Amino acid sequence: MTKISTRVITKVLLYQQVADDLRDLINQGVYLPGDKLPSLRALSVKRKMSIATIQRALEELEIVGLIEARPKSGYYVCFNNSTDAVIELPNMGMSMTMKPKSVKIHELASQIFHQCGAPDVINMGTSYPSSDFMPTPALQKISNQVIKHHMADIVEVQFSAGNTLLRDVLAKRMNESGCQVSASDVIVTNGCLEALSVCLRAVAKPGATIALESPGFVGSLQLIESLGYKALEIPCHPVTGMSLEALELALEQWQISAVLVVPSYSNPLGSCMPETNRKQLVELLATKDIPLIEDDLLGDLSFDGSRLKPCKAFDKKGMVLYCSSVSKTIASGLRVGWIAPGAYYKEVSYFKTFTNISAPQFSQIVVAQFYNSGKYERHVRQLTAKIAKQVYQIQSLIRQHFPDGTQVSNPQGGCILWVVLSQDIDGHELHLKAIDMGIGIIPGQLSSATNKFDHCIRINCACDPKIDIQSSIKTLAAIATRLLIK
Amino acid sequence: MTKISTRVITKVLLYQQVADDLRDLINQGVYLPGDKLPSLRALSVKRKMSIATIQRALEELEIVGLIEARPKSGYYVCFNNSTDAVIELPNMGMSMTMKPKSVKIHELASQIFHQCGAPDVINMGTSYPSSDFMPTPALQKISNQVIKHHMADIVEVQFSAGNTLLRDVLAKRMNESGCQVSASDVIVTNGCLEALSVCLRAVAKPGATIALESPGFVGSLQLIESLGYKALEIPCHPVTGMSLEALELALEQWQISAVLVVPSYSNPLGSCMPETNRKQLVELLATKDIPLIEDDLLGDLSFDGSRLKPCKAFDKKGMVLYCSSVSKTIASGLRVGWIAPGAYYKEVSYFKTFTNISAPQFSQIVVAQFYNSGKYERHVRQLTAKIAKQVYQIQSLIRQHFPDGTQVSNPQGGCILWVVLSQDIDGHELHLKAIDMGIGIIPGQLSSATNKFDHCIRINCACDPKIDIQSSIKTLAAIATRLLIK
Ligand SMILES: Cc1ncc(COP(=O)(O)O)c(C=O)c1O
Ligand SMILES: Cc1ncc(COP(=O)(O)O)c(C=O)c1O
Repeated sequence: MTKISTRVITKVLLYQQVADDLRDLINQGVYLPGDKLPSLRALSVKRKMSIATIQRALEELEIVGLIEARPKSGYYVCFNNSTDAVIELPNMGMSMTMKPKSVKIHELASQIFHQCGAPDVINMGTSYPSSDFMPTPALQKISNQVIKHHMADIVEVQFSAGNTLLRDVLAKRMNESGCQVSASDVIVTNGCLEALSVCLRAVAKPGATIALESPGFVGSLQLIESLGYKALEIPCHPVTGMSLEALELALEQWQISAVLVVPSYSNPLGSCMPETNRKQLVELLATKDIPLIEDDLLGDLSFDGSRLKPCKAFDKKGMVLYCSSVSKTIASGLRVGWIAPGAYYKEVSYFKTFTNISAPQFSQIVVAQFYNSGKYERHVRQLTAKIAKQVYQIQSLIRQHFPDGTQVSNPQGGCILWVVLSQDIDGHELHLKAIDMGIGIIPGQLSSATNKFDHCIRINCACDPKIDIQSSIKTLAAIATRLLIK
Repeated sequence: MTKISTRVITKVLLYQQVADDLRDLINQGVYLPGDKLPSLRALSVKRKMSIATIQRALEELEIVGLIEARPKSGYYVCFNNSTDAVIELPNMGMSMTMKPKSVKIHELASQIFHQCGAPDVINMGTSYPSSDFMPTPALQKISNQVIKHHMADIVEVQFSAGNTLLRDVLAKRMNESGCQVSASDVIVTNGCLEALSVCLRAVAKPGATIALESPGFVGSLQLIESLGYKALEIPCHPVTGMSLEALELALEQWQISAVLVVPSYSNPLGSCMPETNRKQLVELLATKDIPLIEDDLLGDLSFDGSRLKPCKAFDKKGMVLYCSSVSKTIASGLRVGWIAPGAYYKEVSYFKTFTNISAPQFSQIVVAQFYNSGKYERHVRQLTAKIAKQVYQIQSLIRQHFPDGTQVSNPQGGCILWVVLSQDIDGHELHLKAIDMGIGIIPGQLSSATNKFDHCIRINCACDPKIDIQSSIKTLAAIATRLLIK
């Protein structure tokens, strides 16, 4: 794949040679985002140049935002460092053809997830961080204490919106990210998918139209299918997320019962809606009395430690149903999620109760105590640093090995990369050939009820760090190259 | 309440005086079902009569089935000992007026359950055994081992129908009760309510008609309401359960998408469908290709240790969707249930996945290990003995203290009594007055979408054994008496 540098180098001076070489190493993934570069002294010895020349080269790279100096520590590769072609802006003209559609992806989706989950397959399909990223030893210690002190609570079902300890800490954390929510506004669920399902049922009757991002989260599309709704896919900007212009257009044309959005690190595109857009989205829907279901389960997973305010923070009328879970941050297997349903509390509580009465206490208490242990912030910093490393490694490998013209997303959080291949390549065919080689990825067919993304694939970068990532991506690239030639 | 003995005593002989006195003590609940009577010698000393006379009196009671001799142990009060008026047979004429109806009980139900669950209320409303009945110490030991050895499984979500260990033992147990089911036929859920909900969604579209027992389980009625179905209530015989004649009539008249039945110890009536009826029910529906959703979560809770074959055991076409959970036997708080959906496996698995992906591993492994520990059978024997004791104590107290004309059910398992009051008494009014006195019961209004049972109440007898049961029932009786006079 070609590398079109946005920087134009006119005179090749000594320091520029050094800068060019370092930039190449970074682009090739030898130094990954977050990595520390060798010290001035080390580079000076290695290149046989003066410290001043090296210093000038590094400053050059700093100016273009490729690396950053950290006081008393040295130079580090920046996270948002891409000088490469990323995903093109969507053709906003396609918003003209937006139309509610029935979703029929389940058969294919269940086949594909089944294939990705087979024991001998390297699973880059399902979008959960591998358990290597999870704080298992800390959770084990806490679990022991929970068994010791809370066994009576674990044994007896509670007719409630969830464990009080947990709802307290969730409300506290939501307040810290700008949402005015109290413990009594929170309903605990068995994971985020259940949260989304309950919210959809609370606001829309079968047959209704739900607007969501395009490309969208396969789970949401399947929920829309299984609950008998229609999907209205709103084009998504690869950096800023759902196009508000397109949404406005859609709202004029169609009767929409709810909008479903993943504002932070959308799945699969990795876009992150700026706070101004979030505010505007909430206000737009509030004027039309349309509920917004916000899926924020990736909100804590920013690579640079920032935490954007959720849409819920801008919600004055109680029209935002906030959903999240610990599946990507603490443990997917505990199945702990939650909803802050705003004005829809009663309806949401009703459908939650008639899903399965209440969430099990054990998981809830473990999660509450992990948050309260003070270990969460540090864990998430380590987790995102590790995930970012793999994201950038895989991004860099894709750039090196996939055919020319391949575009890859450049997310600032989450764990997923979205790869746009040549229109001639069929994502599902690529998936099938990859499975034959023991590698699982998700084709774009599952990210839409249209076939707009049939030439795309989704890769989970938070896969088991013990696998040979380099050779897996090279294998995928070789398959893509062969499909292109064919 | 009058006691109409079915025995006619003509000559009052010495031994008959003794027999009469003992019978009165049993009817008054001084000796409860399962209790051992004083020894022959002790009675002979106390009554100043010969051992032979006492022996003759006891034989008399044995002949009428009130007590039984156990070899080398003595005489015990029988379980099925009622010589009193029980619930009258339903007027089968009412089957003529069977008609699909929308259910609208949720508002009232959530109020009532909320009131019953308040911290200062003696809760005889919700129908779960109190945690005092549960094997908490054994579960605690197992939980410790599970945390020690299975932490990795607990942390990572599994895209599967459930933990393999658990599905193995569930299939094994189902086979023991006559169902030909293998582990791969079983789907684990978060409790039995979720199981019922998923099965309903798998077999019936919103608007469809579901036939169920009348009076019926409040949770099932609320599921029918929340999923937008209509309920067709089939009259129930207090001993043998759903009337098959009435069901046949209904099937001729209406298009029914599924039949929902609680064959063992139905909630609230306590009826238990004989195996011949189960077989007949399965065959009847099979000829008409109508799925049968069987709720068997009380199947293990027979007072005499018998275990009837579920309907599933007679299922040749795969039309029975078997549902159960450990909520009444091991721990309601673990939220572990399961489905053996027969021919509907694919649809059920689909709706289960899009409810919440899968059940948490911790609960599943704990339950599997408890079953495999060999402690389950003994635990259930002890559990049902304790529950039976409270059921019979409360039954006896109701007979003594409630107004004349009151009828009370005589279940042979489960934990619930159904009390039919004078038509002049409003169950909901009784509930409200009881709540004022700090006692929670469920009025008949919640057991039907009709108002056929407005003069009935449901009492959970597996309530906390530390409460003053006698005075609670006396208080209820006093309220009923006052409502009658008013
Ligand atoms: C955007 C998004 N929402 C929801 C979910 C479901 O999360 P949970 O496992 O908490 O149900 C996922 C899981 O991949 C996801 O990526
Ligand atoms: C007959 C019946 N079915 C189902 C349930 C729900 O059980 P679970 O707690 O396992 O969801 C109950 C609970 O009271 C019940 O009585």
